Amino acid sequence: MSKINKKIESLIRREIQEMAAYHVPEATGLVKLDAMENPFAWPEEMKVEWLQMLSKAEPNRYPDPSAKELVLGLRDCFDVPSELGVVLGNGSDELIQLILMAMNDGAAVMAPTPSFVMYRHIANSLGLSFVGVPLNKDFSLNVPAMISTIKQNDPAVIFLAYPNNPTANLFDDDDLLAILEAANGLVVIDEAYQPFAQKTFLNRAPDFEKLLVMRTVSKLGLAGLRLGFVVGHKSLTDQLEKIRLPYNINVFTQLTATFAFKQIDVLNAQAAVICEQRELLLEKLSSLLGVEVFPSEANFILFSLVSDSAESVFEALKQAGVLIKKMGDVPGLPSECLRVTVGTSSENDLFIEKLSSIVKQ
Amino acid sequence: MSKINKKIESLIRREIQEMAAYHVPEATGLVKLDAMENPFAWPEEMKVEWLQMLSKAEPNRYPDPSAKELVLGLRDCFDVPSELGVVLGNGSDELIQLILMAMNDGAAVMAPTPSFVMYRHIANSLGLSFVGVPLNKDFSLNVPAMISTIKQNDPAVIFLAYPNNPTANLFDDDDLLAILEAANGLVVIDEAYQPFAQKTFLNRAPDFEKLLVMRTVSKLGLAGLRLGFVVGHKSLTDQLEKIRLPYNINVFTQLTATFAFKQIDVLNAQAAVICEQRELLLEKLSSLLGVEVFPSEANFILFSLVSDSAESVFEALKQAGVLIKKMGDVPGLPSECLRVTVGTSSENDLFIEKLSSIVKQ
Repeated sequence: MSKINKKIESLIRREIQEMAAYHVPEATGLVKLDAMENPFAWPEEMKVEWLQMLSKAEPNRYPDPSAKELVLGLRDCFDVPSELGVVLGNGSDELIQLILMAMNDGAAVMAPTPSFVMYRHIANSLGLSFVGVPLNKDFSLNVPAMISTIKQNDPAVIFLAYPNNPTANLFDDDDLLAILEAANGLVVIDEAYQPFAQKTFLNRAPDFEKLLVMRTVSKLGLAGLRLGFVVGHKSLTDQLEKIRLPYNINVFTQLTATFAFKQIDVLNAQAAVICEQRELLLEKLSSLLGVEVFPSEANFILFSLVSDSAESVFEALKQAGVLIKKMGDVPGLPSECLRVTVGTSSENDLFIEKLSSIVKQ
Repeated sequence: MSKINKKIESLIRREIQEMAAYHVPEATGLVKLDAMENPFAWPEEMKVEWLQMLSKAEPNRYPDPSAKELVLGLRDCFDVPSELGVVLGNGSDELIQLILMAMNDGAAVMAPTPSFVMYRHIANSLGLSFVGVPLNKDFSLNVPAMISTIKQNDPAVIFLAYPNNPTANLFDDDDLLAILEAANGLVVIDEAYQPFAQKTFLNRAPDFEKLLVMRTVSKLGLAGLRLGFVVGHKSLTDQLEKIRLPYNINVFTQLTATFAFKQIDVLNAQAAVICEQRELLLEKLSSLLGVEVFPSEANFILFSLVSDSAESVFEALKQAGVLIKKMGDVPGLPSECLRVTVGTSSENDLFIEKLSSIVKQ
C-alpha cells in the first residue's frame, strides 16, 4: 500500500485509513468450498436458451432504471407481498450500503457477533459506529443483551442474518420478534441463505413498518450475477429508491435474472440437492473424532477442531487441493473454527477424505 | 409516494426525504436522442463471437474481485500510466458515490453549474454540502469565482466534467490547471465524453497526487454494461479500493468488457462516425433561424430557442416520435434550452425535419 500525502490523508475518513485492504485468496486449480457458491453449472439446454435470449441485448443502450420486467419476475418467483416495495442492488452488499447511506451521520448499527462481516465493514466505510452483541454459546441470540444494547445505543439499523453466517443456524422466531418489538430503528432480516432453510419473514413484512427483508440470488446459483433485493413497506423503500443509483442493475443482469426466474425450478432443484448433501456432510463430519460440528440450516457448515490448529488444517487442505474458509480469531466463536461450503457429492467426499487424513483422530 | 412513519422518518437523512423521486421518461417507440447513447448496434459477427465467449461464463461462481483480466485490458486500451491505480465501478455513478463516501462527515463538494447532475445528487444522498459555481456566459469556467469558493468553502472534492454536460464544451486546460493548483482537496476530472473530444488529463495524472481522472465506457457504446473507472495515484486509489464493494463488477460485465476492449477499433470507429454526424448536425441546427446552437466537443448538442418555449417544442417533438432532453430551469443556462444526442444519420435528419417544422422560423 502506497503512503498517502498528509494533506489528502486529512480528507479521508480515519476509519478507512485504518482498514486493511480486502483480501480474497487465490483459488485457481482448487476445489472451491470457501464462498457458499452453488457448485452446479446450468444444464446445457438452459445455457443455450440463455445465450439465444441474450442475443437480443442492446449493449449500447442504458438499462431500464426501474428494471420493470425483472421486478415482475422476482415478485412472482419469491412471492413478494404485493403491497410491499422492492429495491434492487448489485448483491446484498450494495443494499447494506444503500440502507446505511440513508441514515443520519453518527448513527449506530447493531448486529449479533459473529455475523456477516460486511455489516461492520460497510458501517465503518460510512463512518457509522458498529455495536456487536455476542451470540450465546449455542449461537442463539442473546435477547436480553440485545435489548439492553438497543436501550443504550439506540441503533438506527439492526442486521439479523437468518440463517446466520458463519454459524449456519436459524435464530429462533420468537427471539427475532422480541428484537423487532424492542427496536426503535430499522431491522433488516438478511435471508441470503433462505434457499437452504425455507423459513422466511417475507410474509410477515407487511406487519412491521420498520422491517426490511433482504435476499440475494447469489446462493441460489447466481453468484456471478450480483443481484440482491430488499423488500419492505413502500414508505421506506420509496426513500431508498431515491438514492439507489438509477442505472445500478445493468442490461445483462436484468435479462439474465428475468430469464433465470423463469427457470427457478432448476435452481430450486439444485438447492434441494445441496440440502441433501449438507445432511450427508454433517453426518460424515460428525463421525470424525477430532471435529466438533455445529448444526446447519444453510449451504455451509461450521466446525471446530478438538486438538488441531485451524490454520494448519486449512493449509494442509489447501495443499491437498481443497479450499475452505479460515475463521481466524472471531469473537464469539469457539477457537480453531473452519467453515466449509457444501459442494457436489464428489467434492464433499474429497474434502472428507483429505480432512480425515489431516485431523488427529 | 407513501407517507413515512414519524419514528422511521427521524432516522433518514433530511436531504433524502426532501428529494423528489428520480424520473426517467418512457421512451418506448420513440427515436431515442435523450441519453447520450451510441446509436450503433454491434456488428453481427462481433455479437456472435461475444455470445460464444459468454458460453464459458460460470453464473454460479462469484466474480474475480480484482477483475484482473478486465483491468489489464483496460490499461492497455486506454493507455493508463502504469504507475497509477485503477478503481472500477458500475458506471461513473458508483465511483462518484465511492469517492464521496470516503470523505469525512460534513465535507463540501464543489462543481461548476450547470454540470452533471449526479455530483449534487450523490453529495446530498450522503449528507454532504454541495457548492455550485456558475459558469461564465460562454460556458467557460469562472476561475476567480472558483478559487474564491475554494478559499471560502474548502471543498474536499471538486468535480470538473471535461467535456462538460449539459453544455458540451471542453474547459480550457489552463483553467483546469489553475483550479488543480488552488485546490486543497481532491479534483476529479470526469472524462465521460472523452471519446468525442480526444483530449484527456490521463497522461498528466502522474503529476498530481490530488487528481483523479474518471472515465466510463457508456458513451463509447457500452451504456448497458455500466462500467466506469477512476485512475489516480495509488496512495489514493488504494484507499478507495478498501471501500469498493469487493464483488461490485459482475461476471458478465467482466467478460463483456474484456471482450469489447479487444474490439476497441469497432467502438472507436463508431465514435468517429458520431463526431462526423455531430458536425453535420451542428451545421443543420445553426441554419435554423429560431435556434441558437452552442459549440460541442461531445456526442450531444445544447441549443436554445429564440421565440419558442422549450417545453412545448420538447412535447411536439415527442408527439412526432423524437425524444430529446428538456433542460428545465437550470441556473447558468440561457432560458428555453434543449439537449439532443447525436444519433445515426437518419435519426438526426428526422430530428431536424421535425424540429424545423415545429420551431418558429
